[in-house]
Amino acid sequence: MLYVIGLGLSDEEDITVKGLKAVKSCERIYLEAYTSILMVDKERLEKLYEKEIIVADREMVESECDKILEGADKINVAFLVVGDPFGATTHSDLCIRAKELNIGVQCIHNASIMNAVGACGLQLYNFGQAVSIVFFTENWRPDSFYPRIQANRQAGMHTLCLLDIKVKEQSIENMARGRKIYEPPRYMTVNTAVEQLLEIEEKLQLGAYNEDTLAIGVARIGSTDQKMVSGTLKQLVDVDFGAPLHSLVLIGSQIHFLEAYYLRQFAVDVESLNMILKRDYDLKE
Amino acid sequence: MLYVIGLGLSDEEDITVKGLKAVKSCERIYLEAYTSILMVDKERLEKLYEKEIIVADREMVESECDKILEGADKINVAFLVVGDPFGATTHSDLCIRAKELNIGVQCIHNASIMNAVGACGLQLYNFGQAVSIVFFTENWRPDSFYPRIQANRQAGMHTLCLLDIKVKEQSIENMARGRKIYEPPRYMTVNTAVEQLLEIEEKLQLGAYNEDTLAIGVARIGSTDQKMVSGTLKQLVDVDFGAPLHSLVLIGSQIHFLEAYYLRQFAVDVESLNMILKRDYDLKE
Repeated sequence: MLYVIGLGLSDEEDITVKGLKAVKSCERIYLEAYTSILMVDKERLEKLYEKEIIVADREMVESECDKILEGADKINVAFLVVGDPFGATTHSDLCIRAKELNIGVQCIHNASIMNAVGACGLQLYNFGQAVSIVFFTENWRPDSFYPRIQANRQAGMHTLCLLDIKVKEQSIENMARGRKIYEPPRYMTVNTAVEQLLEIEEKLQLGAYNEDTLAIGVARIGSTDQKMVSGTLKQLVDVDFGAPLHSLVLIGSQIHFLEAYYLRQFAVDVESLNMILKRDYDLKE
Repeated sequence: MLYVIGLGLSDEEDITVKGLKAVKSCERIYLEAYTSILMVDKERLEKLYEKEIIVADREMVESECDKILEGADKINVAFLVVGDPFGATTHSDLCIRAKELNIGVQCIHNASIMNAVGACGLQLYNFGQAVSIVFFTENWRPDSFYPRIQANRQAGMHTLCLLDIKVKEQSIENMARGRKIYEPPRYMTVNTAVEQLLEIEEKLQLGAYNEDTLAIGVARIGSTDQKMVSGTLKQLVDVDFGAPLHSLVLIGSQIHFLEAYYLRQFAVDVESLNMILKRDYDLKE
């Protein structure tokens, strides 16, 4: 059996009781370590599981599916995914391959940023499509998600922006020379995301948002030191959200009064927030 | 401390290790039992927790907040929620009240249908706003969610439809006479949801969907006997999905080829599905 097990968002104890039982029944345990990360080292997981973990990078998951699945028709193999198993397409590929090999697949769900973002007080019902914001490079400054944000905001919906992480990336030079030397991991901050968003708006000038648009920056959701700050995009550029992972929520053209209540709890500046809530949303204090 | 703890979707072992530890530290444990249900009796939870559980109905949560929170500045109190804590507005109220009383609140996340629906193979990125479909009565046949479905489908997005549950409802007669006699619980089936949707379309005639629209019915997501069936709305009317809880996903005007792969795995009728995928989505087998 292949167990695809969500680990939740923060530390080793966010695994479910069911997930932990399954892990303990497995002979090999892979940890997917490139679409997201936990906030603890793998040693903490190994201690709880009383088992060794094999870290699976993108290369392994995408090109060595069959190695991961080897023998899983007879033994149990675990594939651990931060958040919920169905956050990334890659895992679909592994499940499809398992089925082709007649290997049973059982999925054990967990929280992911897609639902845990509700912690910021915005109703999940009021979110439109989520988008991914990737790191700009000198020559590649992608803005393909812009129409989604625009459609969401026009329809009154909030937009969850998932922020890029770069793990085990090679520099162009090292890649060209075939040297398996990797750059230090990078995790996009709320600040960088906001800067990139404002640059895109400046270029496209289509008015999906501007520097006065309300947003919430969130960091380390689900951990005891999670941080949430609401404000305009301009205000959020300068807020220090601390360690990764960060996400950003762009608020839509409609806000429920209960959502506004939460925004006020963690505003950069309540006064300017109230001004915008009154001016743009007709919401009184 | 007030611990607001997500229980996940299926049985007592879907609680996280962290959640279980927190429950065990609590002197009073409330189970919210009206916005969703687990698929097991509360005795199974009590056995795992080695604690007694107080079932909290809507009346208690909405009007007796302070009773639930009593003493929680000194002792630990758990408020258990099926799925993730931030699925329903009601729980926000409780957290807000706790903060007013200077009681610490810690939220322990878990899977909810909002992210676990990814198990059907549709990418969570491609979902628009979720909607709730409530039971029609003779005189009340609400269709206020229709524009949301229309906006989602037009923008190529899928729509998760959450289906009504009626727990501890009184008949009009019993309510009028003040008799605390409750009707048996009712859980909306995929079939009823589809019938209601088609009735609404027939009345409004705005073309958000029709009986040939593709959809996926899902039941008991996260349990070992979960069921997923894809087909046209017309086809899904007659599919038996078994025990609750059911949800329905209306597929948008765009489908990724990997999503189509999954649709084929559990189609009512692969031949007619392929015909529609080719005709409406330009997707080959």
